[in-house]
Amino acid sequence: MKTPDGLRSLRVGLGDRAYPIHVGPGVLSRADLLADCLPGGDVLLVSNETVAPLYLETARATLAGRRVETLVLPDGEAYKTLESFGRVLDALASGRFHRDCCVAALGGGVIGDLAGFAAASYQRGVALLQLPTTLLAQVDSSVGGKTAVNHPVGKNLIGAFHQPVAVLADTDTLATLPAREYAAGLAEVIKYGLILDADFLAWLERHMPALLARAPGPVAEAIARSCDLKARVVAEDEREHGRRALLNLGHTFGHAIEALAGYGEWLHGEAVAVGMVMAAETSHRLGWIAAADLARVRSLVSAAGLPVAAPDFAPEAMLTAMGMDKKVIGGRLRLVLLRTLGDAVVSADVPRELLLGVLSDVRRAS
Amino acid sequence: MKTPDGLRSLRVGLGDRAYPIHVGPGVLSRADLLADCLPGGDVLLVSNETVAPLYLETARATLAGRRVETLVLPDGEAYKTLESFGRVLDALASGRFHRDCCVAALGGGVIGDLAGFAAASYQRGVALLQLPTTLLAQVDSSVGGKTAVNHPVGKNLIGAFHQPVAVLADTDTLATLPAREYAAGLAEVIKYGLILDADFLAWLERHMPALLARAPGPVAEAIARSCDLKARVVAEDEREHGRRALLNLGHTFGHAIEALAGYGEWLHGEAVAVGMVMAAETSHRLGWIAAADLARVRSLVSAAGLPVAAPDFAPEAMLTAMGMDKKVIGGRLRLVLLRTLGDAVVSADVPRELLLGVLSDVRRAS
Repeated sequence: MKTPDGLRSLRVGLGDRAYPIHVGPGVLSRADLLADCLPGGDVLLVSNETVAPLYLETARATLAGRRVETLVLPDGEAYKTLESFGRVLDALASGRFHRDCCVAALGGGVIGDLAGFAAASYQRGVALLQLPTTLLAQVDSSVGGKTAVNHPVGKNLIGAFHQPVAVLADTDTLATLPAREYAAGLAEVIKYGLILDADFLAWLERHMPALLARAPGPVAEAIARSCDLKARVVAEDEREHGRRALLNLGHTFGHAIEALAGYGEWLHGEAVAVGMVMAAETSHRLGWIAAADLARVRSLVSAAGLPVAAPDFAPEAMLTAMGMDKKVIGGRLRLVLLRTLGDAVVSADVPRELLLGVLSDVRRAS
Repeated sequence: MKTPDGLRSLRVGLGDRAYPIHVGPGVLSRADLLADCLPGGDVLLVSNETVAPLYLETARATLAGRRVETLVLPDGEAYKTLESFGRVLDALASGRFHRDCCVAALGGGVIGDLAGFAAASYQRGVALLQLPTTLLAQVDSSVGGKTAVNHPVGKNLIGAFHQPVAVLADTDTLATLPAREYAAGLAEVIKYGLILDADFLAWLERHMPALLARAPGPVAEAIARSCDLKARVVAEDEREHGRRALLNLGHTFGHAIEALAGYGEWLHGEAVAVGMVMAAETSHRLGWIAAADLARVRSLVSAAGLPVAAPDFAPEAMLTAMGMDKKVIGGRLRLVLLRTLGDAVVSADVPRELLLGVLSDVRRAS
């Protein structure tokens, strides 16, 4: 699926809503990749103050030939709110955008989720083009149609399922990504290996130094393989009635860390990294994965420059914070755990005491 | 489909999202009708200050056996906003409602649309129970899954398609409905006859006096037939890619009247009534329907106690206001018109001058 210019293309198979994902250097400039994807109308290009100075003009040039309006929001998770959602909708309504318009999200997961929810809601749904510029967004949030904003009570509590018409993941944009954010993206890459693909996990263990050095070939390969794994799960279970929940490995723990630390203190990927260690630890204590496997998880997460322990939060507080996670059904805590490396399951049967033990032990000494 | 106790039940055929509509006296008290419809979790019962004192306790009793929280909003179209949407979501999030919860909308179209959009968005979609208490909501807005809030630029600009799990249309609640609102509901009933069913239209002409007198049998029959006609269209074209657009007969004109008059001055059904006369007039001038048919439309609308002419708005201003309607694709004005009575079509080819003539003539003398 790789062409000589380094372009890797794949497809999310969702019937008449199927869409392409293009990964590689310079794809943000490739108007040809969008030829058959966009509707005929105007485009609202949504970005943030960090990304816009770097890539807004490139994106605008790629979309040339139609009216392109821009909306540049402040950068950060703190702005992933209903209020910002209202600002995107104001821009669409005041700009008299019609049903055949397109919202293009240029930025990381916050911009993608926010602009995506606005695209889902404006006129009950208009086209969405994902132009992710962070590793996290390229391997995770831009693919699969989950959109949302946060609520003070919990992350991503308000949103919609709304698939994009295309995803252009330009690996060149990763050059400007801060190291901490880059590592946070690697957490989701590791996740795919852990839950779905032991071969990919082994590949990641071998290539982690190259990935940390942002070597173009391995980076594009890791992104394309991650997207491909995610695309398969989404095609099977778009609305998370079953298998898609596996993609939340580490997320229930992670959301609790993010919430207790105060949103914005921990990057999502960092919290997920610790969450995956917690899930692996839980799986080990349940007798599912061996001590050596647990050590591999810890070691790979650490090699990616990611934390492997939470701050010194009280285990009971963590458990309460985990209770508001969307993975809870009927008040019962359902966790994604590892049967073996490369094979995840959802379990609602983890003894409370075992969980408190894990939460107590996977902490930094205070 | 009618049982001895006056209950009429039908079904909206949408595969695994099919749902029942129950019409008749006292159905709001019939917990048995909900036995297989609701998920297992808590219920947020959303209503307004007018309806709550009359029916909230009845609804609460019907939902007994689970935790039921209530949220009572101010009454009126002016509150169908993103801000009210935020209030419903605050109640859900702060109340720690889980994915298996249900939002129950007790009231007219505003409550149904607003609570429906909140149900569509909370945790990316939770169950919605429609308990419509106005004729308009019973024959139109509670059926078919369209949810929305208004934006200052236009009505229903922000929303989602989200089907309910059941609709209970209690005809007893119509006893407390003001005459003006009751008539506004009849506009949508007439609409179904005009676009889909010449026999039903003739039935309405014969039974309009009984309907105006709110005779229980004819009222329940009119509601059930309206719901059945709408359900068929929705089952064919849930997301309005084609045929469903026919349900918007009179709405492009009507929305313009509502906007120019200032939201809240005209009831939606009143504006749609005039809009249907405008659509019929346009159809007549295009040579599609005869003068006698146009007279029948005007006469039936008038017999229902509804207006047949707009205020003295400038035709150009009306045309501009119509331009922001969602039925516009690619900047082209698409109108629902009548080929014959009982058979509607969408047309993008109405000459501008002809339209201006209609808008000029279907006005009250100032």
